[in-house]
Amino acid sequence: MSTRRDHDDRARGGAKERLYLYDTTLRDGQQTHGVQFSTREKLTLAAALDSLGVDYIEGGWPGANPTDSAFFDARPETRARLAAFGMTRRAGRSVGNDDLLAAVLNAGTPAVCLVGKAHSGQVAQALGITAEENLAAIRDSIAHVVKNGREALFDAEHFFDGFRLDPGHALACCHAALEAGARWIVLCDTNGGTLPAEIAPVVREVIAAGIPGARLGIHPHDDTGNAVANALAAVDAGARQIQGTLNGLGERCGNASLTTLIPTLLLKEPYASRFETGVDRAALAGLTRTSRMLDDILNRVPLRQAPYVGASAFAHKAGLHASAILKDPATYEHVPPEAVGNSRVIPMSNQAGQSNLRRRLAEAGLAPAPGDPALARILETVKLREDQGYSYDTAQASFELLARAELGQMPRFFEVERYRVTVERRRSREGRVVSVSEAVVVVLVDGEKRLSVSESLDGEGQDRGPVNALARALMKDLGQYSERLADMRLVDFKVRITQGGTDAVTRVVIDSEDGQGRRWATVGVSANIVDASFEALLDAIRWKLLRDPPGPSAPAPAEGRRALRQEPADDGA
Amino acid sequence: MSTRRDHDDRARGGAKERLYLYDTTLRDGQQTHGVQFSTREKLTLAAALDSLGVDYIEGGWPGANPTDSAFFDARPETRARLAAFGMTRRAGRSVGNDDLLAAVLNAGTPAVCLVGKAHSGQVAQALGITAEENLAAIRDSIAHVVKNGREALFDAEHFFDGFRLDPGHALACCHAALEAGARWIVLCDTNGGTLPAEIAPVVREVIAAGIPGARLGIHPHDDTGNAVANALAAVDAGARQIQGTLNGLGERCGNASLTTLIPTLLLKEPYASRFETGVDRAALAGLTRTSRMLDDILNRVPLRQAPYVGASAFAHKAGLHASAILKDPATYEHVPPEAVGNSRVIPMSNQAGQSNLRRRLAEAGLAPAPGDPALARILETVKLREDQGYSYDTAQASFELLARAELGQMPRFFEVERYRVTVERRRSREGRVVSVSEAVVVVLVDGEKRLSVSESLDGEGQDRGPVNALARALMKDLGQYSERLADMRLVDFKVRITQGGTDAVTRVVIDSEDGQGRRWATVGVSANIVDASFEALLDAIRWKLLRDPPGPSAPAPAEGRRALRQEPADDGA
Repeated sequence: MSTRRDHDDRARGGAKERLYLYDTTLRDGQQTHGVQFSTREKLTLAAALDSLGVDYIEGGWPGANPTDSAFFDARPETRARLAAFGMTRRAGRSVGNDDLLAAVLNAGTPAVCLVGKAHSGQVAQALGITAEENLAAIRDSIAHVVKNGREALFDAEHFFDGFRLDPGHALACCHAALEAGARWIVLCDTNGGTLPAEIAPVVREVIAAGIPGARLGIHPHDDTGNAVANALAAVDAGARQIQGTLNGLGERCGNASLTTLIPTLLLKEPYASRFETGVDRAALAGLTRTSRMLDDILNRVPLRQAPYVGASAFAHKAGLHASAILKDPATYEHVPPEAVGNSRVIPMSNQAGQSNLRRRLAEAGLAPAPGDPALARILETVKLREDQGYSYDTAQASFELLARAELGQMPRFFEVERYRVTVERRRSREGRVVSVSEAVVVVLVDGEKRLSVSESLDGEGQDRGPVNALARALMKDLGQYSERLADMRLVDFKVRITQGGTDAVTRVVIDSEDGQGRRWATVGVSANIVDASFEALLDAIRWKLLRDPPGPSAPAPAEGRRALRQEPADDGA
Repeated sequence: MSTRRDHDDRARGGAKERLYLYDTTLRDGQQTHGVQFSTREKLTLAAALDSLGVDYIEGGWPGANPTDSAFFDARPETRARLAAFGMTRRAGRSVGNDDLLAAVLNAGTPAVCLVGKAHSGQVAQALGITAEENLAAIRDSIAHVVKNGREALFDAEHFFDGFRLDPGHALACCHAALEAGARWIVLCDTNGGTLPAEIAPVVREVIAAGIPGARLGIHPHDDTGNAVANALAAVDAGARQIQGTLNGLGERCGNASLTTLIPTLLLKEPYASRFETGVDRAALAGLTRTSRMLDDILNRVPLRQAPYVGASAFAHKAGLHASAILKDPATYEHVPPEAVGNSRVIPMSNQAGQSNLRRRLAEAGLAPAPGDPALARILETVKLREDQGYSYDTAQASFELLARAELGQMPRFFEVERYRVTVERRRSREGRVVSVSEAVVVVLVDGEKRLSVSESLDGEGQDRGPVNALARALMKDLGQYSERLADMRLVDFKVRITQGGTDAVTRVVIDSEDGQGRRWATVGVSANIVDASFEALLDAIRWKLLRDPPGPSAPAPAEGRRALRQEPADDGA
C-alpha cells in the first residue's frame, strides 16, 4: 500500500517509521450498545475520519444489516483505504460457495478484513471443526481476497487467550494468513481481558516466530480500562498497526480510543520522534471538534474527563493549580490544549474569568472597558443560568445576546404577545391515524399587533411537529424584519434532559444558517419542551437581526420569500 | 499500621503480599470540574468506601474549604484509616508557625498526607527557594506529623517530571521524607503526562536507590488514558500502595479508577494470586452498586462503557457474540459479571440473530417453538423499526409488546380515539409571562367512549410541559384498568434526535416504575415529539397491564388514587 504521505516521507528521506491507524468506528463502534448509525451519519463520519488522516476506514459488515450495505453502495471517495469486514469462509463450504463472504467482496472496497478464530479450544467448541480445517478456512479465505485484487487483513479473534492456551495453533493461524498473502495480521484481544504487561512479551514472541512487526496490528478492548495502554505496549513491542475507534466507541467497554491515542502518538515521546502517522498537526488541531461531532451524531453528552478532548481535560479547579498555570502551563498541562483544538478552563469566578470573558465579548465585536460593572453582572448571570441548565459553551449567539442585554446594547426588535400550539392525533376520514400541529403567534411589531398561524404539514402531508409549526408562524410576518430573515434556515435541533429526577428540565439548542453561510447556535431551557424551543428560536431570530442591519446589503425580498416557504425547521419536533 | 485483614493474613500464614488502596475521592475527586460534595454526601461516601474495604480514606484538605472542615468535624468511625491532606510547611516558617499545617493536624485524623514538590525546576520557579530549603521543609513537616503521633505520607508532587529533569533532587525528596519517618512515599504523576512504559523503570530506580517498595505508593492521573495502566505498572515494579478514586473522579481527566483497578487486582492474574487487599469477594460483588451510588450523588448518568460496572460492560450486541456466549460465557467475558455485581445484557438489535431473539423472549416469559414463522417476522419488524429510529436495546418493554403482537399474544386493552394537546404562552393578569399546557384524550374502553382533560401545572403552579399533561389525561380514566395503573410512575424521559437534516425524527424513551419495584423502558418515534412521547407512554401502560393481570394481587384502589394524583411524569417536557 502507498499513500500520499508515504510518498512525502520518502521524499523527505524521513527517518521515522510509519505507524498505521485503522479506524473501526463504523463497524466495531456500531456494536456499541445503543448505537445505530444511519447511512448518512456513516458518510459524515467517514469524511471526518478521512480529514483526520487515518489510514483505513472500516465501514461495516456488508450484508449483515441494511445500513452497512447502503453505506458501501454509496461508497465515498476517501484518501484512506475503505475496508469491509466479514468472516473467513464457513466450514464445509468453498470460498466460491459462501454467500456471506461473497457479500463482503461485493462491497468493492480496496481492503477486506476477515475475522477467524485463533483459539484452538474455540475452534473445536464453537465451530466444531479441527485445527487443520480452521487453518484451511483462513488460508482459503485470505487467498480469495488477494486473488480478487484486494488488500487482505486477518483479524485473529481471541488471539491472546488462544496464545495462552495453545500458542502453536494461535501462531499457525497467523502464518496461514501471512502465507496466503495477508498484508496485516491483527492480534485481537476479543474479550478485552489481557493486561498491558502480557501484551508486549506475546507480541515479541509472535515477531520472533516469523510474523514481521511491520505486518502486525493490535485490536484491543477496554474491559480492564487498558485498551490505550495495550495498544501502546503492542507498538513498543513492534506492531505497526493500531485498530481503534473515535471516542473509544465499541462492543461492551469499547475499543482503544484513537481520540486518545492520536495525540499521544503525535505529541509525546518516544512516539513523536519515532513514528510517522497519516495525521498531521493541522488535523490534530481539529481532533476536539471531530470528537464532539461524533457525540453530536450520537446525541451524547461529551465526556468531560476524556483525555485531550474533554471539556475538563485542561480545567484547573484547584486554586493552587490555577495560579501556577499562569506562571508555567507545563506544570499542570502535559501538552498544550491548542494542539488538540481544546482550550484551558479556569473557573469564571476569579480574575482569569474576567479576561476570558472580555476575549469572548471581543469575538462578538463588544469591547467593554476593563472594570465595567457589567462584566461582573454578565459572569453572574451566566453562572446562574448555567445552574438552571443553559449551556453557553455550545450557544455562543445566546451568550452574545445575554451580554448585550447587560451592556445595554440590545435593541428591542419586536415583542411576542402570546402563542398557542396545538398537537392533535386523530383518525382521518379514510380511517388512518394522522397527527397535525398548528401554531398561532401574536407579535407586536412596528407598533402593530400581528397574528400569524401556521401548521406543521410539509409538502408531502407529513407532520413535522409543533416546534416546526411554531417556527413557521413566528417567521411568517415580522413586519419590517421579515425581509432580513428571509434567508435564515434552522439546520439542527438538539434536545437534552439536563437533570434527572423531579427537577428535570429540557435544554434545546438550535443551529441556524443563513444565505451568507453564517451558522449560529442558540439555547432555550424550560420544563416545557415547546417553550424551550421557542426561546432558542427567538434568540436565533434576534441574533440574525443584529447581524444584518437594514439596508441595501439585505438579501433580495423575492429570493427571501422563496426561502421562507421552504421547510424552515428540520427540527423533528 | 495494622488492620483486621493484616491480622487474618498472618493467622492464615498468607503467602500473598499486602497491597494497599488509598482512596482520594473526597479530596482529589472533589477537584473534578463541576463536583462539590456536601458534608452529608462525604459521610455517605466514606461509609461506602469503608464497606468496600479500602485501606485509607482521604477526606479533604482541612481549612481549604468549609465542607472539608465540616467533614472532619463530623469524623466518621471507619475501619479504614482516615487521612487529611495538606502541604508541607511554607518557606520561611517553622512547622509550629504555619497555620495551614496546623489546620491539617487539627483535623485529628490517624493519617496525614502532605504534598511537597519533588521537581527542582519548580522548587526554584514556583516556590523561589533552594533545593536544600525544599528538603528541609519536607523533613520538618513529616517529622512534625510523626511527632504528633500520626501516620505520615509524603505526596511527591511532579515526581516523574522532576525525576526526568533532575533525578538527584527527586530522590533526595523521597529520602528526606523517609528519614523523617514517613510510612509512605507517594510518587505523583501530577500533570498526568507519564506513559506506562516510563513508570516501571522509574519505580525500579527509586527502589534501587533505597526507598523500599513496601513504602512506595503511586498517584497517577488519566490525561493520556493510562492512569489504570500506570498504577499496575508501578505495582509490577514493586510499589505497594495505589491512590485512586471511585469512578476515576478527579482533577482534569481524573485519577486512576479504583472501580476499575479493584476487580482487576482481585480477579485477574498475576495480581489475584500474588496480592491481598482489604477488599473481599463479598464487597467486590457490591462494586457496581457503589459506583452507581456515586453517580447518583453527582446526578450523573452512569458511564455505560465503564469497565466492569458499566451497563454495557457485559452487553453482547453482535449476533456472533450473542450466540457464542450461550455456549461459553468466557469467550466474550473475561470475568463473570456477577463477581462485580453487574449482569449480562443481550440486547435486541439489528445485529442479533434468532438465538438472541429466543433468549430475550424467554426472559419475557414467551417461548415460541424454534422455527415459528413469527420469529422471522419479529426480527424483520425490529430491523425495519430500528431503521426508522426505534431502539429496542434500551426499551425491552416495547420490544416485548412488539413480539407479543407478532405472536398473537397481545390483548387489546383500550383504544385511543384521539388526543389534543395545547401549549400556550401568554401574559398573566399580573403581567408575568406564563406557559401552560392542556391535554384532552378520548379513549374507547369497556365499550364506552371516555373523555379526559388535564393540564400541566404542578402543585406549585409550574408548567411541567405538554407530555406531562398528556400523561395525566391519558391515565385519568381508563375504566377497569385505572386501578391496575395506580402504582405506576414515570421516572425518566430521554429525548434524542436520531437523524440530522430534513429526515430528523425524535426518539423518546420513557422509564417507568411501579409499587412492586419493577422498572421498564419503552420507546416512541415520530417527527412530532409529543406524538413520540405519547407512543412510548402507551407502551408503558400496556406493559404494566400485561404484568398485573386483574385480581386480588392488584394494589388497593385507595392507595392507587393517591399515587395517580402525584406527578406522573418527571418528564421535563
